[in-house]
Amino acid sequence: MAKYKGFAMLGINKTGWIEKDIPEVGPFDALCKPLAISPCTSDVHTVWEGALGERTDLILGHEAVAEVVEVGSLIKDFKPGDKVIIPAITPDWEAVESQMGYSQHSGGMLQGWKFSNSKDGVFGEYFHVNEADGNLALLPEGVDVCDAVMLSDMVPTGLHGANLAQVEYGETVAVIGIGPVGLMAVAGSVLRGAGRIFAVGSRKKCQEIAKFYGATDIINYRDGDIVEQILEANKGIFVDKVILAGGDVDTFEQAIKIVRRGGIVSNVNYIGTGDYIKIPRLEWGLGMGHISVIGGLMPGGRKNMEYLSHLLMYKRLDVSPMLTHRFNKFEDIETALLLMKDKPGDLIKPVVLL
Amino acid sequence: MAKYKGFAMLGINKTGWIEKDIPEVGPFDALCKPLAISPCTSDVHTVWEGALGERTDLILGHEAVAEVVEVGSLIKDFKPGDKVIIPAITPDWEAVESQMGYSQHSGGMLQGWKFSNSKDGVFGEYFHVNEADGNLALLPEGVDVCDAVMLSDMVPTGLHGANLAQVEYGETVAVIGIGPVGLMAVAGSVLRGAGRIFAVGSRKKCQEIAKFYGATDIINYRDGDIVEQILEANKGIFVDKVILAGGDVDTFEQAIKIVRRGGIVSNVNYIGTGDYIKIPRLEWGLGMGHISVIGGLMPGGRKNMEYLSHLLMYKRLDVSPMLTHRFNKFEDIETALLLMKDKPGDLIKPVVLL
Amino acid sequence: MAKYKGFAMLGINKTGWIEKDIPEVGPFDALCKPLAISPCTSDVHTVWEGALGERTDLILGHEAVAEVVEVGSLIKDFKPGDKVIIPAITPDWEAVESQMGYSQHSGGMLQGWKFSNSKDGVFGEYFHVNEADGNLALLPEGVDVCDAVMLSDMVPTGLHGANLAQVEYGETVAVIGIGPVGLMAVAGSVLRGAGRIFAVGSRKKCQEIAKFYGATDIINYRDGDIVEQILEANKGIFVDKVILAGGDVDTFEQAIKIVRRGGIVSNVNYIGTGDYIKIPRLEWGLGMGHISVIGGLMPGGRKNMEYLSHLLMYKRLDVSPMLTHRFNKFEDIETALLLMKDKPGDLIKPVVLL
Amino acid sequence: MAKYKGFAMLGINKTGWIEKDIPEVGPFDALCKPLAISPCTSDVHTVWEGALGERTDLILGHEAVAEVVEVGSLIKDFKPGDKVIIPAITPDWEAVESQMGYSQHSGGMLQGWKFSNSKDGVFGEYFHVNEADGNLALLPEGVDVCDAVMLSDMVPTGLHGANLAQVEYGETVAVIGIGPVGLMAVAGSVLRGAGRIFAVGSRKKCQEIAKFYGATDIINYRDGDIVEQILEANKGIFVDKVILAGGDVDTFEQAIKIVRRGGIVSNVNYIGTGDYIKIPRLEWGLGMGHISVIGGLMPGGRKNMEYLSHLLMYKRLDVSPMLTHRFNKFEDIETALLLMKDKPGDLIKPVVLL
Repeated sequence: MAKYKGFAMLGINKTGWIEKDIPEVGPFDALCKPLAISPCTSDVHTVWEGALGERTDLILGHEAVAEVVEVGSLIKDFKPGDKVIIPAITPDWEAVESQMGYSQHSGGMLQGWKFSNSKDGVFGEYFHVNEADGNLALLPEGVDVCDAVMLSDMVPTGLHGANLAQVEYGETVAVIGIGPVGLMAVAGSVLRGAGRIFAVGSRKKCQEIAKFYGATDIINYRDGDIVEQILEANKGIFVDKVILAGGDVDTFEQAIKIVRRGGIVSNVNYIGTGDYIKIPRLEWGLGMGHISVIGGLMPGGRKNMEYLSHLLMYKRLDVSPMLTHRFNKFEDIETALLLMKDKPGDLIKPVVLL
Repeated sequence: MAKYKGFAMLGINKTGWIEKDIPEVGPFDALCKPLAISPCTSDVHTVWEGALGERTDLILGHEAVAEVVEVGSLIKDFKPGDKVIIPAITPDWEAVESQMGYSQHSGGMLQGWKFSNSKDGVFGEYFHVNEADGNLALLPEGVDVCDAVMLSDMVPTGLHGANLAQVEYGETVAVIGIGPVGLMAVAGSVLRGAGRIFAVGSRKKCQEIAKFYGATDIINYRDGDIVEQILEANKGIFVDKVILAGGDVDTFEQAIKIVRRGGIVSNVNYIGTGDYIKIPRLEWGLGMGHISVIGGLMPGGRKNMEYLSHLLMYKRLDVSPMLTHRFNKFEDIETALLLMKDKPGDLIKPVVLL
Repeated sequence: MAKYKGFAMLGINKTGWIEKDIPEVGPFDALCKPLAISPCTSDVHTVWEGALGERTDLILGHEAVAEVVEVGSLIKDFKPGDKVIIPAITPDWEAVESQMGYSQHSGGMLQGWKFSNSKDGVFGEYFHVNEADGNLALLPEGVDVCDAVMLSDMVPTGLHGANLAQVEYGETVAVIGIGPVGLMAVAGSVLRGAGRIFAVGSRKKCQEIAKFYGATDIINYRDGDIVEQILEANKGIFVDKVILAGGDVDTFEQAIKIVRRGGIVSNVNYIGTGDYIKIPRLEWGLGMGHISVIGGLMPGGRKNMEYLSHLLMYKRLDVSPMLTHRFNKFEDIETALLLMKDKPGDLIKPVVLL
Repeated sequence: MAKYKGFAMLGINKTGWIEKDIPEVGPFDALCKPLAISPCTSDVHTVWEGALGERTDLILGHEAVAEVVEVGSLIKDFKPGDKVIIPAITPDWEAVESQMGYSQHSGGMLQGWKFSNSKDGVFGEYFHVNEADGNLALLPEGVDVCDAVMLSDMVPTGLHGANLAQVEYGETVAVIGIGPVGLMAVAGSVLRGAGRIFAVGSRKKCQEIAKFYGATDIINYRDGDIVEQILEANKGIFVDKVILAGGDVDTFEQAIKIVRRGGIVSNVNYIGTGDYIKIPRLEWGLGMGHISVIGGLMPGGRKNMEYLSHLLMYKRLDVSPMLTHRFNKFEDIETALLLMKDKPGDLIKPVVLL
């Protein structure tokens, strides 16, 4: 059986290049070869925080644009040679959870997330895609390959935050955490018609780009309590929506304290520690304040990739300012991942063009 | 100035009959005289738990059917002699919060609730109604006066729980807490097409009536952990929705542990103690499980009273089994309230016909 | 290749028994053998009105409960011997339309409907099911086989009408047309909390059963204009929602004339003739009255079958009064279909137990 | 009683300056004096098409920014001297229709529209505002007075079209009619995240500005059938949503022919002639294609004015390109209105700064 090379988690805190058998292609599957990839903070969580528990020889990565190499016998819409966008989340579409609108959780909590989780990821010479007709999208002409990699995870996750928050025309939104996902939550809020946008973060580069995406106010938690800063800037008026793209269980408390009755706190951040999400009872209206708290994994699949690619095609969204570090050799995957781990001040996202 | 008599909170832990000036009727107001009233657990919280803080000489009560005695100069739709249902929540309809769909919070968190909170309640010979054209509803012919008192608070609060939970055809619902509000949450779930309904409570009488309203399974927390009991009975499958009509900050943990991804935990219970609502991080999908947590005060106003009264008119809902104790003298208001405080085993709701 | 027998449309206006090759079972498919079937008005439209155009040797039928005979190599949740409910609509779940929430139209307008349309139906000794893991549902213990056949089409179509109409607590609903689908629209409205329900139809038997399902008022179009009759009975007040389960392009005009601003006219009826659905300009508010007009094919698939079966399991819905004519031989399929065509006065639905 | 001067409809096809008594200010009302006004196509319909029927001495106009001159005794949030935005629609907020979310129709079909309809409009030295606390919004600092006049009607109507169409990220939208409302529907679609936008119109100036607001494709009906043009440009793929801001009963047919199953046709255009809105039966899926048709008057009131003003404050929307003709004398109201009637090629909207 033919082998391929990939960059893997060897165990918690250990990474390296390994060889594996090229996966078999079932009737509804596809085999792809990456054209461009990007590492994600989740890869860092997986390896260096053990977010998924112990894993051995798991090829990392779930953000890629690729070329189709082989398709299953029952695939109708794709063929070898097609250039495609691969979503980080590749659901089982026939699952009951998918039929209910929660394809992210097809097969169980978060189980629509397969790459670098329940199967090998995209940091290899090849990777396998399940239900290819439902999970691949053609790369539209005129869309840059590196830009398109942002559609795998950063764009849909950030925009999902704005969708869960149901941002409406003229609303005031606070986005807490302005790494790449938070930046896309800012952009996503603008794309849903938000008015004032508070972007909370401390890194200069991130603040700069948050403004590019439409943040009207930058709040730095190093300058004091963010609840006080936001309420003061907003003249004591609560914000309409809060999107959490950073922080931890305590950040929910801050969110509840700045949001109006009838508002929404939406989370798209991986919460790695703590026993309980903290919802302060009083500010939550003693249980009766109509403040919704919701958090969710991005929806994946073909339809989302197609529709989000329209935002790039028609210049509604420019992701290029996020691509602060560019590489162009397969071997650079390792460098790019370590960069994501070390987060130098000028980094938003690295991308590797292959 | 003419005086009227009412049963009041004199201070925390103290009640008594007092006299007050008959309130003035502004151009959009009405003055009413109760025909039937019912005490609420909230009245008990107010007096004996100090839920609203110290209050002096506040006439209690917010559940009533009444006769209109006087109307303001600009009232169009009501006149003296009309028999009307009064909602516990009487919003300021022109407020921005009302325009946003959250009339319960017009003027601030929970401030749509005025009776026995920010002004004198309905346990008097008279009471004042703000924005009468928007807050009164005619008692329909053929609807029993005592039954109709349940429309002030019990029915809308329970049904609001089912609405917030967005119960759909065939869904499995757990209703935690089966006092009068929880019973109406059971009924409200059936009226939204629920399939299996787990009703959680320990009192015999409540269990009996929960079955009458359509509960398929009774779960008693005295028989063991309710999470285990429900998951076992449901063969390990999560329920679709949970409605909290009892419990405290810890009950949210149990709710999250039994609900599916994409499910909703809806609270209509006053949460009186504890710093934080407890949302368990792991079962909440590390922030990404799409489990919504929402809690809210019932919506009041005329439209809701009119539409809910249709449920009684057309025999969709029979509230009479809830009316376990009936009185018929003005003085019995005191007895009825004390009954609500002492909760004898056979009590659901007392009602006083005047 | 083995053959099987089935009752087919031979051409427009012609039916008969034919033999066909037993279909091949692909990796995601199943082969089933019916346990009970029911003919549908659509079968009548197909054969005697040419609703689908000319078709030759097309086995009819799309309502069945069956036993699984064979499953594809990749099927995970079903095995030979399982008793299953088959929905009339069996979507391609990976299709973009399904990902958008419109699985009925996966592959094109109405193309989720395959049985007796784009492939042979269930009136045979065997039939083929696509994407079996996503389109079959286990028949729950304790649910009667004949009752369960109503879940294939009648129940989901009628309830879809109530869902599209977004019926809410206490609303007044008019259901126009009370054949089996309309009856289920009445039941579905009650199961969403409707108050008053006007059921419009002329057949005695249907009127009787409409009352059983919760209609409060029967309107017979033979007694005069239904717009006038309904508005008079409702004291000039518009109804909140209209569900069309009968009629033609002109019926929409009547519907618009009785519905309130902000109301919904929902159609689940096949409209067979006429160039234009007629929406009267004036009553539609000169284009600005906020009256939604929406029509749609029932959603199929496993999840819906599972959830709707809960309504039977937990006694929320009793479909047995609809089963007015019962047969028990394979050959009776023909008789049952002709009965559906001839519509004797006492017929609602025939069912054949095999 | 003091008099004031205003520009009025004297009768169908007749306008002129008249004098009237200054209206009385009730307890919840305000008296205002315009700072800037703009005529609307509706004023033209009213006078020269008799859209409201015969009217005598009705002061025209419903788009204004003004200064508060006097407030009623019960007004809490405004005082003389305040600069305020006035919405074209000033609902009765306590009405049942408003409580149901349709304040535009408070008191009856379209009855939330009062200025220059059921009472004198804003083209006078003074005008009266009902329920001022619920219907005025403070002009935010830094927002240009003339720009703000566009918030009365053009912005909310166009954006309401996009809201009714529920435009989502990446969707393809066709906006038919690109007068001022259609242009705002284009802008509103972009502000809800649309991808490709087809703007249908023939006037050069309108096409130019449509591009400024984000239209990606201009379709001119003079170049041939718009259905063919749009489907060809979109490679045979249906658009997701259609917003009608022009046309007549026949335009709905074109809209249905280009929209996908599950799509929405939203109308914000006054439909002045024809008996029936034309919904083609076949393309509407024989009644089962899940294509929603909805039309509605803009929502007015304070909350909407406040939130839409945020779009100007935070530079999400620049309305200044619409203000093609500027005047600065009270007498110019007449000139501005006639300009709106004559529609010279370079006109979008005239505004009169007073």
